[in-house]
Amino acid sequence: KELSLAPQVSSFDRAKMEDLLKRRFFYDQSFAIYGGITGQYDFGPMGTMLKANMLNAWRQFFVLEEQMLEVDCSILTPEPVLKASGHVDRFADLMVKDVKTGECFRLDHLIKAHLEKQASDKKATKEFKDECADIAVKLDGMNKAEMAAILVKYNMKSPITQNDLTEPIEFNLMFGTSIGPTGLVKGFLRPETAQGIFVNFKRLLEFNQGKLPFAAAQIGNSFRNEISPRSGLIRVREFTMAEIEHFCDPNQKDHPKFVDIADYEMTLYSACNQMDGKSASRIKIGDAVKTGLVANETLGYFMARIAMFMIKVGIVPSRLRFRQHMSQEMAHYACDCWDAECLTSYGWIECVGCADRSAYDLTQHTNATGVRLAAEKKLPEPKTVEVTEAVPNKQIIGKAFKKDAKEITELLAKMSLDGLKKMDEELTANNTYNLSNFTLNREMVSIKTSSKTVHVEEIIPSVIEPSFGIGRIMYSLLEHRFQMRDGDEQRCFFSLPPIVAPLKCSVLPLSNNAEFAPFIKKISTALTKVDVSHKVDDSSGSIGRRYARTDEIAIPYGITIDFDTIKEPYSVTLRERDSMNQVRIPLEEVADVVRNLAFSKTEWSEVEAKYPKFEQQESKTA
Amino acid sequence: KELSLAPQVSSFDRAKMEDLLKRRFFYDQSFAIYGGITGQYDFGPMGTMLKANMLNAWRQFFVLEEQMLEVDCSILTPEPVLKASGHVDRFADLMVKDVKTGECFRLDHLIKAHLEKQASDKKATKEFKDECADIAVKLDGMNKAEMAAILVKYNMKSPITQNDLTEPIEFNLMFGTSIGPTGLVKGFLRPETAQGIFVNFKRLLEFNQGKLPFAAAQIGNSFRNEISPRSGLIRVREFTMAEIEHFCDPNQKDHPKFVDIADYEMTLYSACNQMDGKSASRIKIGDAVKTGLVANETLGYFMARIAMFMIKVGIVPSRLRFRQHMSQEMAHYACDCWDAECLTSYGWIECVGCADRSAYDLTQHTNATGVRLAAEKKLPEPKTVEVTEAVPNKQIIGKAFKKDAKEITELLAKMSLDGLKKMDEELTANNTYNLSNFTLNREMVSIKTSSKTVHVEEIIPSVIEPSFGIGRIMYSLLEHRFQMRDGDEQRCFFSLPPIVAPLKCSVLPLSNNAEFAPFIKKISTALTKVDVSHKVDDSSGSIGRRYARTDEIAIPYGITIDFDTIKEPYSVTLRERDSMNQVRIPLEEVADVVRNLAFSKTEWSEVEAKYPKFEQQESKTA
Repeated sequence: KELSLAPQVSSFDRAKMEDLLKRRFFYDQSFAIYGGITGQYDFGPMGTMLKANMLNAWRQFFVLEEQMLEVDCSILTPEPVLKASGHVDRFADLMVKDVKTGECFRLDHLIKAHLEKQASDKKATKEFKDECADIAVKLDGMNKAEMAAILVKYNMKSPITQNDLTEPIEFNLMFGTSIGPTGLVKGFLRPETAQGIFVNFKRLLEFNQGKLPFAAAQIGNSFRNEISPRSGLIRVREFTMAEIEHFCDPNQKDHPKFVDIADYEMTLYSACNQMDGKSASRIKIGDAVKTGLVANETLGYFMARIAMFMIKVGIVPSRLRFRQHMSQEMAHYACDCWDAECLTSYGWIECVGCADRSAYDLTQHTNATGVRLAAEKKLPEPKTVEVTEAVPNKQIIGKAFKKDAKEITELLAKMSLDGLKKMDEELTANNTYNLSNFTLNREMVSIKTSSKTVHVEEIIPSVIEPSFGIGRIMYSLLEHRFQMRDGDEQRCFFSLPPIVAPLKCSVLPLSNNAEFAPFIKKISTALTKVDVSHKVDDSSGSIGRRYARTDEIAIPYGITIDFDTIKEPYSVTLRERDSMNQVRIPLEEVADVVRNLAFSKTEWSEVEAKYPKFEQQESKTA
Repeated sequence: KELSLAPQVSSFDRAKMEDLLKRRFFYDQSFAIYGGITGQYDFGPMGTMLKANMLNAWRQFFVLEEQMLEVDCSILTPEPVLKASGHVDRFADLMVKDVKTGECFRLDHLIKAHLEKQASDKKATKEFKDECADIAVKLDGMNKAEMAAILVKYNMKSPITQNDLTEPIEFNLMFGTSIGPTGLVKGFLRPETAQGIFVNFKRLLEFNQGKLPFAAAQIGNSFRNEISPRSGLIRVREFTMAEIEHFCDPNQKDHPKFVDIADYEMTLYSACNQMDGKSASRIKIGDAVKTGLVANETLGYFMARIAMFMIKVGIVPSRLRFRQHMSQEMAHYACDCWDAECLTSYGWIECVGCADRSAYDLTQHTNATGVRLAAEKKLPEPKTVEVTEAVPNKQIIGKAFKKDAKEITELLAKMSLDGLKKMDEELTANNTYNLSNFTLNREMVSIKTSSKTVHVEEIIPSVIEPSFGIGRIMYSLLEHRFQMRDGDEQRCFFSLPPIVAPLKCSVLPLSNNAEFAPFIKKISTALTKVDVSHKVDDSSGSIGRRYARTDEIAIPYGITIDFDTIKEPYSVTLRERDSMNQVRIPLEEVADVVRNLAFSKTEWSEVEAKYPKFEQQESKTA
């Protein structure tokens, strides 16, 4: 049912695409000559340029257009930071091991695969099939005990050896190491870039002159020690993320630019519809916020901007949807969370998460460090407040505790109102109170309540977090844009938009005639001058075959130098990849025309309207 | 002596610069709210934009202009790869520990600091001072035993506790971890990006259609577990590198574009001059290659290109030199190696290494994997060669060794000519030969020599490697471009060239007069349209104070909206940061003028010549 809004993609041949990606070195397994490691990939020249273009587009679309504060933080992270964020205790997947070989399996994947296999058996009853389907839906929300029960109930074994399996084990997904020569400082490779922003909150707020709201952004690598990575680029052990943390007043989540995008229509798959077995629906983001489906304007604004970005870089709109987290899968502190998912041959894949994380992260780091990660908000008018505080008798405390006196004073200053009340009661009742390791008596401390006029209040900002998995977007994009020429299965290509295409233009002399050489150089220099990345292919091989090669690496425009080029008035042909249409253009105009096409200042249709069509039987000469 | 070509930088105040860098969050210590870890830094918004601009400039200057193959490889590297590269065995620094506290000290730094302190003592004799200076010069080339002897001779203790120190210990600088859930696959964070290129050599050669020479490039993070990092950004535990590996025929190290740069004059500090206590000298790179001072054209070409890049991003030419490695500091496999060094308040700092690494790396990985990382070179004419090979009697071997027969055949095929001769001799003498775990006899294998006509020969390419430390270049650049306004020590700024400046332009309304608002918006939109990053500062504070703030973050151009702006014909003032000169420009022209300035298409002097000067007493209004 969840696929009902998705178009059929019947002709997609994953093996064919993967062959092309490998052959033209978009990316391939890392360290293959050493046997390789699963879940690690190296990007070749085409993949690297695609990725660099996508990141530049991201920086332009989000950081520069929205004037965000971009940071670049350390990857190696000391343990206390990730203890506070919850990753040390909870960033784990369940796994089971083959009791004899020690091979590890991710538990949810094992259960899913086992039940799918059983259910597909000819002898499986309708009841059994329904049972399996029901478990598959609920699996994401199950805890360790529930999964362990399923393991026993269906008597699951190692799918490889049929040996018995261990009890489920929680496996923390962070890579550990130690920092410095003593081996005593434990650290991890960051599992997400977000924490680097949170621990810099005070500096960023100050940079923004103390004002809310503001957004910080970071592009960088993160690491997860996946139990048994598969599915190519979709589940890997190191990956590039681009994250935004938008800090705002928890009571003011409206957005000044929301009005600009309120009419933008998106495919939303609400938690309700998921639970009721209904499908996703098309809805204007303004209406989604108005009805409360999407929690607030800022979250809605980012969802719309995410969709616009995805479509700009080439994701097919009909294969993009936003799925709301259901209550059991949402982090306990989050108010609302939507994943931008792309439909691929692996199903719907989460590519961007967009969550309202409330004040969770800043609160956690505040509690762990004692450094208040908060902002000051000017009150509409000054108000008088009662302030209750502990007043230490410094002389007596100093005498009694010597060098620890300072610590005691600090501890007293940090106490909450409840703590102060409790202390006061105990001191009155028993004349003794245990503060951390120190025993205080009535003489040492009194409680004072007084009135103060305050002009500001302290607030812990809420965080709206759009978090992009760059590799997953790239993979989805490659699938969405993989094409075969009509009637020729062997001619595959990627119809990537110019903005992300690895190279923007090819320069092809019709043959290796020496008279073409000065024209190649002239055109190459002109393209470099206007910042158009390009590739000269003067190898032998028919022009058709060379076009096919440039199509494979997604080059959107091709300039051909032929025998008419070398006659005055000099001219060349310009070909567009997807339509294979060509026009004839004066030599001195071609660099600017390609530049305008490559940077989306001109449409191809305008070029076709302006210049004479050039007819060539490409398929025959190929 | 080595400083003799360097200008005096007497007025530089490092504390003042560091205060500005911290205050405007160019960069600062990571995880400071958790106490921080030495050798780790987070880049704030200004540092991140500076770094991103520098990397974009690098990509444009090297990858795109030279059509290099850029890759993006895994950081986590399995142990066998770094075993082959030599890092597991040799990538170590010597350290000593305080026997009581366990505190670690890097040995060479400890010795240097100890002797410097002793030599600066009033009572130190001339002989003793000379002795210390002599050791300091030789320290880099000393081995473990030599340093241990110095430790004993001068009775060195912990500089902090005066406790005894341990014997020198070799500490490997790689961060270790384990990959996958079993804990059995040992890995390291890469200590350099280069290995990722070497292990992909075959794919890259194929991408380049089998042809030499070609260059691959990579930008990415590397990690070194420094013993006791200090000196700010110069010695850190994680850092961004940009590396180039240029693969070429070992017998053809000429370069087609060398002629274009042969007259480029550089400051070279040869190994001879260093040994003889002479100073560096200015020399044309063409002459340096002609006289054999620089090993070959390709190395010389890259050295010149490195110098051009450094100067383009803002390194002060008089504080840049190339220092040749002396024989004892050069890796044993390298033919020649030059470091681009920048003069800073820490002395001359290595920022870029440029080495001819010969065939070392590809040979090491070939030996470790059995995969031949070699290229084929077409012979000028076909030649006949004698080929000697083992001919296994498959039937007899199959019978004798069953399933191991295949392995034996493979082992025989891999044998060298010397091995074959030795085997033949032994079989003839004893009728027995031990091949790995298998015992062969005369019946099982014969040796055959035959003639073959070959058209190609296999060559292992040489590698020329320019390797850039991006953080070190950034730090040097910041020092070189840190300035104080004449007569006002409090007004500091960075005169960064527009190409790397974090933001290109500021937009400042003279006051918060409401009539200015539409003009701010109009200018901001126009600047965005022509891709000029900018910052609107409509905060209160005099215009002079706001200029000073934008100067601090190195914004090269400032547009001010004043009361003449809102009268027809609309106009604004445009200010240049370094000269503080201003001109008056029509509103509709200003975005294009700034764009041309920011992207180095126009010089400021041209703008001053074209538009009327605008006079304002900036210092008085500040």
